[in-house]
Amino acid sequence: MEQVENKQVILKRYAVEAPKETDMEIKIGKVKLKAPKGSGAFLVKNLYLSCDPYMRGRMRDFHGSYISPFVPGQPIQGFGVAKVVDSDNPDFKPGDMVAGITGWEEYSLIDKTLQLRKIQPDSDIPLSYHVGLLGMPGFTAYAGFYEVCSPKKGEHVFVSAASGAVGQLVGQLAKLHGCYVVGSAGSSEKVDLLKNKLGFDEAFNYKEETDLDAALKRYFPEGIDIYFDNVGGPMLDAALLNMRVHGRIAVCGMVSQHGFYDPQGIHNLYFMIPKRVRMQAFLQTDYLHKYAEFLDHVIRNYKEGKIVYVEDMNEGLESAPAAFVGLFSGKNVGKQVVCVAQE
Amino acid sequence: MEQVENKQVILKRYAVEAPKETDMEIKIGKVKLKAPKGSGAFLVKNLYLSCDPYMRGRMRDFHGSYISPFVPGQPIQGFGVAKVVDSDNPDFKPGDMVAGITGWEEYSLIDKTLQLRKIQPDSDIPLSYHVGLLGMPGFTAYAGFYEVCSPKKGEHVFVSAASGAVGQLVGQLAKLHGCYVVGSAGSSEKVDLLKNKLGFDEAFNYKEETDLDAALKRYFPEGIDIYFDNVGGPMLDAALLNMRVHGRIAVCGMVSQHGFYDPQGIHNLYFMIPKRVRMQAFLQTDYLHKYAEFLDHVIRNYKEGKIVYVEDMNEGLESAPAAFVGLFSGKNVGKQVVCVAQE
Repeated sequence: MEQVENKQVILKRYAVEAPKETDMEIKIGKVKLKAPKGSGAFLVKNLYLSCDPYMRGRMRDFHGSYISPFVPGQPIQGFGVAKVVDSDNPDFKPGDMVAGITGWEEYSLIDKTLQLRKIQPDSDIPLSYHVGLLGMPGFTAYAGFYEVCSPKKGEHVFVSAASGAVGQLVGQLAKLHGCYVVGSAGSSEKVDLLKNKLGFDEAFNYKEETDLDAALKRYFPEGIDIYFDNVGGPMLDAALLNMRVHGRIAVCGMVSQHGFYDPQGIHNLYFMIPKRVRMQAFLQTDYLHKYAEFLDHVIRNYKEGKIVYVEDMNEGLESAPAAFVGLFSGKNVGKQVVCVAQE
Repeated sequence: MEQVENKQVILKRYAVEAPKETDMEIKIGKVKLKAPKGSGAFLVKNLYLSCDPYMRGRMRDFHGSYISPFVPGQPIQGFGVAKVVDSDNPDFKPGDMVAGITGWEEYSLIDKTLQLRKIQPDSDIPLSYHVGLLGMPGFTAYAGFYEVCSPKKGEHVFVSAASGAVGQLVGQLAKLHGCYVVGSAGSSEKVDLLKNKLGFDEAFNYKEETDLDAALKRYFPEGIDIYFDNVGGPMLDAALLNMRVHGRIAVCGMVSQHGFYDPQGIHNLYFMIPKRVRMQAFLQTDYLHKYAEFLDHVIRNYKEGKIVYVEDMNEGLESAPAAFVGLFSGKNVGKQVVCVAQE
């Protein structure tokens, strides 16, 4: 059978600090559009690829984490939306749409379906939302807010990286739950989005604040009940000074840190004690039994116009390295997705 | 009515970093051994006074904490065991023994009974234990271990400041619960106590370790399920590198820090994420509804010889400032108490 070209984004070498575009390269490979007989695998055409901060952890030569590193010389892997082209797996047939872990390439042979689900195209919902609002980031927001933060109506909620893939849904879920919600982000455009499109009560640009503690005191004169932490670092340190009694901090990500080790350090953990603060790190994978409930809740509210979602869509696989690297300087406005093909 | 002398330990000035003996002074006051009519107060003779690390927080000019600062020129306040001499409160009569917040002086007039309880002298239990094993430190260990750590039989438990007032009971409760327990302390004498008297499985002298991470890996090759943190600082940072999936850290105290602000900082919070670690700060006051259950559990096990308790007893009120200051350099071996009078 004829082979076709298969453009790929290859990991060239492990990243040392923040990933750089030069840690990746574009290669043109070849692929047969056929799932080998007896393999149990299926071949997909990739349509949308997701750029997520957690992937940085896989760009390091570190094997002690919850997920193995990428393999140099091989395509980057990540969440994507794809269409089945050929299948040796009886559960998947040509034409099926799937969302799950795939390769950063035009076509991928998929033999692991652990983090993969079949999706039903719905004309009301953009396909790409299956790696964002309805995918891992959306579910992270849902599980983190409802299962980790123990929210109560009327509570005061702070979200960092609030216009990002996770943060924007956390804020909207908190509003739907009857909370007062403030978000921080890194540009006036993002602050505008938070206040005027995403329904946050208040928002501020942390880059314009010389004193994060003072900024938080301005928006939370009575303190923070829930801090949904997507960044770690100095913002976490400032939040620790402003937590209310029995406050909760959901530790979702630490995108502000260039490595696992935070060179600046967190200095205000003492303040957890008088306020009896709970700091809980989590991974969405521990809550997958709630996925159906999540989809039901979010799709219903989305269709009723009560939830919106902002994407930052790059066109073309060759734009993927820059899109990914941009996450770590906050270049993206909303959930970063790469469109490889529309169908 | 005749006045008698009343020796007192006065707060001279607020402490800047770790408290110094010179922040306090001994004064001889006068007191009438009578509770004023209509005051609802009662006058006690103080027998045993407790030196507790949390008191450092009251030696600072900082009003935002859960407990107000001491007043310069006034006696230090803390937990003590005392005998009622005269009473204008119908619930307390001369001869009654009480344990609770009193003054660092020979005689105190008590008008607040919020943190005070009557105790029944029991010939099997030293009176001083009512500020230690059966007092706030013991209850801190009990509430922290059972209510905060969610312990399961067979889990691997690490306790820092393990021979201290709280740590020694945490370790013994964990052993009774069927856990593997390792403690750290600051001298070979304390390590010996932990291993040979308090029943810890292992113990080490953190001052002899050049690499705390390596020390923890030696005793916890498979990682730590529960870290009962009495110290904060570098030991917490090392523990963060060694937590098991779904590990729990009870943040009880941060005695290693000279101030509220930790100048060294904590650098390894990232590692909470892959392991989904929960870090929960607590105060024993939130769990007082469990106090009767605690007393029952601990007294029963103590009488059966399954729990022991090590005290460091200083003699005489004038020794109290040195005893208190010694807490912050780890001079005390076991729970630090000051005997003012035996009866």
